[in-house]
Amino acid sequence: MNATHSPDSTGGLSTTRIEAFSDGVFAIVMTLLIFEVKVPELAPGMMDIELLPALLRMWPKYLSFVVSFVVTGIYWVAHHNTFHLIRRTDRPLLWFNLMFLLCVAFIPFPTALMGTYVGTPIAVVPYGLTLIATGVSLRLLWAYASTRRRLVAHDLPDELIRAINRRMLMGPVAYAIAILISIFSATLTLWLYAVVPVAYIVPQSFDRLFARHARKP
Amino acid sequence: MNATHSPDSTGGLSTTRIEAFSDGVFAIVMTLLIFEVKVPELAPGMMDIELLPALLRMWPKYLSFVVSFVVTGIYWVAHHNTFHLIRRTDRPLLWFNLMFLLCVAFIPFPTALMGTYVGTPIAVVPYGLTLIATGVSLRLLWAYASTRRRLVAHDLPDELIRAINRRMLMGPVAYAIAILISIFSATLTLWLYAVVPVAYIVPQSFDRLFARHARKP
Amino acid sequence: MNATHSPDSTGGLSTTRIEAFSDGVFAIVMTLLIFEVKVPELAPGMMDIELLPALLRMWPKYLSFVVSFVVTGIYWVAHHNTFHLIRRTDRPLLWFNLMFLLCVAFIPFPTALMGTYVGTPIAVVPYGLTLIATGVSLRLLWAYASTRRRLVAHDLPDELIRAINRRMLMGPVAYAIAILISIFSATLTLWLYAVVPVAYIVPQSFDRLFARHARKP
Amino acid sequence: MNATHSPDSTGGLSTTRIEAFSDGVFAIVMTLLIFEVKVPELAPGMMDIELLPALLRMWPKYLSFVVSFVVTGIYWVAHHNTFHLIRRTDRPLLWFNLMFLLCVAFIPFPTALMGTYVGTPIAVVPYGLTLIATGVSLRLLWAYASTRRRLVAHDLPDELIRAINRRMLMGPVAYAIAILISIFSATLTLWLYAVVPVAYIVPQSFDRLFARHARKP
Repeated sequence: MNATHSPDSTGGLSTTRIEAFSDGVFAIVMTLLIFEVKVPELAPGMMDIELLPALLRMWPKYLSFVVSFVVTGIYWVAHHNTFHLIRRTDRPLLWFNLMFLLCVAFIPFPTALMGTYVGTPIAVVPYGLTLIATGVSLRLLWAYASTRRRLVAHDLPDELIRAINRRMLMGPVAYAIAILISIFSATLTLWLYAVVPVAYIVPQSFDRLFARHARKP
Repeated sequence: MNATHSPDSTGGLSTTRIEAFSDGVFAIVMTLLIFEVKVPELAPGMMDIELLPALLRMWPKYLSFVVSFVVTGIYWVAHHNTFHLIRRTDRPLLWFNLMFLLCVAFIPFPTALMGTYVGTPIAVVPYGLTLIATGVSLRLLWAYASTRRRLVAHDLPDELIRAINRRMLMGPVAYAIAILISIFSATLTLWLYAVVPVAYIVPQSFDRLFARHARKP
Repeated sequence: MNATHSPDSTGGLSTTRIEAFSDGVFAIVMTLLIFEVKVPELAPGMMDIELLPALLRMWPKYLSFVVSFVVTGIYWVAHHNTFHLIRRTDRPLLWFNLMFLLCVAFIPFPTALMGTYVGTPIAVVPYGLTLIATGVSLRLLWAYASTRRRLVAHDLPDELIRAINRRMLMGPVAYAIAILISIFSATLTLWLYAVVPVAYIVPQSFDRLFARHARKP
Repeated sequence: MNATHSPDSTGGLSTTRIEAFSDGVFAIVMTLLIFEVKVPELAPGMMDIELLPALLRMWPKYLSFVVSFVVTGIYWVAHHNTFHLIRRTDRPLLWFNLMFLLCVAFIPFPTALMGTYVGTPIAVVPYGLTLIATGVSLRLLWAYASTRRRLVAHDLPDELIRAINRRMLMGPVAYAIAILISIFSATLTLWLYAVVPVAYIVPQSFDRLFARHARKP
């Protein structure tokens, strides 16, 4: 069945099509993060002795890669959960989604910056700001779609909408705290970035609430 | 339902398949634009002092990224709107579409050029020329498909065809004006590039016209 | 309808799934070709004067990009035409297809080589060899699938199979001739590479033959 | 038919959607491997004489590319075979799959490392470790899904589950042996990496067993 024929479309851009496009952006971002981790360049005679220390010194790059991969994965899940509840699209939703994807597509740059200058406070701040912008743009998309149930089911319970509202602010607040901590230690900020995702991965009461209400008819 | 079995196919290349392939190209271009924004290289001792100024000096690169992301997003929407009206494919359409995608895939190069040498007039001209070529190639695709309703519905109203014709020339004309202005100021041209997309994002009478006529039966 | 449930599958790898995966590889190769075209690096004071000549000197890179984009597009169409006739998959077909995609994924390297050292005979030879390998691997895939109508329709006419056999050898033969000509002029070889695709784009008697027979029931 | 409506979904993330996303990651990794193979930089006057030797000296890079392409292709097939048997998804499965994709997305880095410093033992070890991690993460995903038939068919035969268990450990064990051999010769390890895939490509009794039992109803 061709998705472009469904009634919930905006000039051919159904929710299914928008999700598939977004999935493409997510898959590319997550896969390309590794290309910011470059093979160390060593003098010819020194390879046997220096390669292992050179590889070990690159730990902030590996950690940045893993953290960004997991964080992007979390936003991918959050994006799907959100679109699972959205029934119709319109032009503003399309652009809210593109603004969200703009933030997601930007993530590799602050990731590379953090991996390169990890000891420097200013190098960890753009990463946190980018994740805040990503979270806020998804929150705005949700606010647009859910306010007066504009694009969601008319009987979507208030309880679920409010739970999603809260959950979507968790990340930005945590990243803001991590940024403030960079005044004391940029390395600690990096480790805080690494810990935040865990709160989203661990199953919670939210998941049960979502599972109960999120069945499409 | 397998799209390749539908009657509107060219050796297995249905409109659905062509759209999915085009979506892939768009998603990759939009996501890879950030990889032209490189982490600044600083001398080891100077990181704390010089990183912030170095990051701020890179504003033309961020602006180029955002403008190209949004412009490519607009062409993505325009491409979908166009294919929403196209019912059949043939070999010429396939190649008109590949020529359009060739222009889209070229966008990252003039984007990087503009971000690197923003003060120089010659660095902003290729960007405008590429966007003109992209717009014109989509206009040619549409001309081929809509002339004598070759590949669109037989009852597609003249009014909508003419509105699309006009709308597709808006961008190229605006970019041509922006190029001419680079004689006076290349930086002004960059800002003009950034403003043109807004005209496409703001909802207009066109959208109502399109929504009224573009329902597939 | 989930493609993995169809009877013509190999452990979940239906022709639809294999085609979608192949489309992804094609879209990525065609889009990434531009990232081998780097912005020229100029001394700060010389930008206004030297940028235009520097950009014009890069013509072999632009030409290589366009030729590779079009050539890859032709293989994309050929791959679809081939899979349009294939009804069943098995493990050998899967690996014939991966070997074909290996050749396609390799194309960006000889493209970059040719764009960098265009005057040098040895720089244009790997490009031709890669395109020959790509064509031959698709021919082997087709030989496997069509011999004794192993994976195609039992009533697929001999006439069409032989026409496809001939058409698939056209490219490799033309590229072999282009390689031989590099003994005299590597630049002429590049232009020959650019001309070969035209023979595939221009509509031919083959297209009518294919269209007549290639309707899936 | 919209996959997000099927009963076997986790907030919109059906097995079909997860497979499509995973396919995207695989296609990108396999296609981007070639971008680690850089065009050699030569002094202007020396191109005619030095280009061929420079290209030939790069054989470890070509071999690394081919091996990684084939190895990733094998994991792609294995991933599909696994998801062919999985009927339902839940949040842990989602994250087991993302951990598996994290390993897959990491492959280009040790590939580039091995291609650059092939003679050095320490340069071939990370490649083997990455492939072991990839294999083990798929094994854990399968353990989670198949234990007490949590996410697979209730009548999936023990014989098939045990055969998959064995087959999934074959690779990691072979790579562990190859790593040990790097103590004697890093070049031999590279060639062992190249030979392991053959065992998976050659049709085996496993394929017949899988084909017999893996038909979804």
